[in-house]
Amino acid sequence: MARWQPGAPDRLQQAAMELFAERGFEATTVADIAARAGVTERTFFRHFADKREVLFFGQDLLQSAFVGAITDAPEGMSAIALVSAALEAGAKGLQEARGQSHARARDAIISANHALQERELLKLAGLARAVTAALVARGVAPARARLAGDLAMAAFAAAFQQWVESGQTRDLTDLVHEATSTLRDIATS
Amino acid sequence: MARWQPGAPDRLQQAAMELFAERGFEATTVADIAARAGVTERTFFRHFADKREVLFFGQDLLQSAFVGAITDAPEGMSAIALVSAALEAGAKGLQEARGQSHARARDAIISANHALQERELLKLAGLARAVTAALVARGVAPARARLAGDLAMAAFAAAFQQWVESGQTRDLTDLVHEATSTLRDIATS
Repeated sequence: MARWQPGAPDRLQQAAMELFAERGFEATTVADIAARAGVTERTFFRHFADKREVLFFGQDLLQSAFVGAITDAPEGMSAIALVSAALEAGAKGLQEARGQSHARARDAIISANHALQERELLKLAGLARAVTAALVARGVAPARARLAGDLAMAAFAAAFQQWVESGQTRDLTDLVHEATSTLRDIATS
Repeated sequence: MARWQPGAPDRLQQAAMELFAERGFEATTVADIAARAGVTERTFFRHFADKREVLFFGQDLLQSAFVGAITDAPEGMSAIALVSAALEAGAKGLQEARGQSHARARDAIISANHALQERELLKLAGLARAVTAALVARGVAPARARLAGDLAMAAFAAAFQQWVESGQTRDLTDLVHEATSTLRDIATS
């Protein structure tokens, strides 16, 4: 599991989200974000390629959590058991490190901007590939690992979407379990 | 099932693929493509927003095939049976209308260009949403339909990737059946 301690990237993300909410995504500059976070622009660019990337910092942490859980799992687990362990670790980590209100605020910013929605989809595809590679490293056949990686991200994305809905009171880990179980049910009905 | 008769869009796609292969994607202009297809630039822009879109024309046809199969399926089919019918119709249509050598040539162009790979992923996500919407219209619960839509595209993308590999002699429909069956096996093991 990656360590999710607050540091410059976390402060920059927090600052960016405040500014995006106050002024809108387009009207916010990297200079604004760096100033609000109390760091230089150079520090911003040490951590992020552009102002869009700052919204996707959590996904790098999520990827570490997914991959770490698969890498550290006991011997002899099936692909779906490895995927479940990965989703559980990712959900738990995201919930603890970011929390639901952060996730909702981020979702509102992304939903309002088409380019950010595209970036989100591409990042999800990147997460699926990372899960696939981790499964292959654990001996899962590549074709099977690819499908299992896509299945994992389908379950995670569905659960995440439910988690950020207003009025949702259930844990992300609960929702991930339910999505995985629904996938199993769909596949066998 | 959509009718896939050769018309201006098909000729433009064929011309674009020839030019992309001869000169590269970047060096080819819309004017070049229109001239090779024997149509005006105005005709090009009546069918496609830009030169990238011309490579994704087949995906619109694929979407019609997927959605049509779900819409026209008999009553009382489960979500996975509807998805299987959609994938079967899409695979059959794509194979007949385009064929493996076309798919391979297109894949080579897309694999060589990062922006095209991104567009491909976004188009796949669009296909998943279209399948989801068609399933909801057939009475599948939205959360279940979303997962089934993602599952469908995971199976189709995996099968398609195997189909365009050099030396692959199996039918796309065969490969789609195998991918669906592997997904079922993963989900239940």
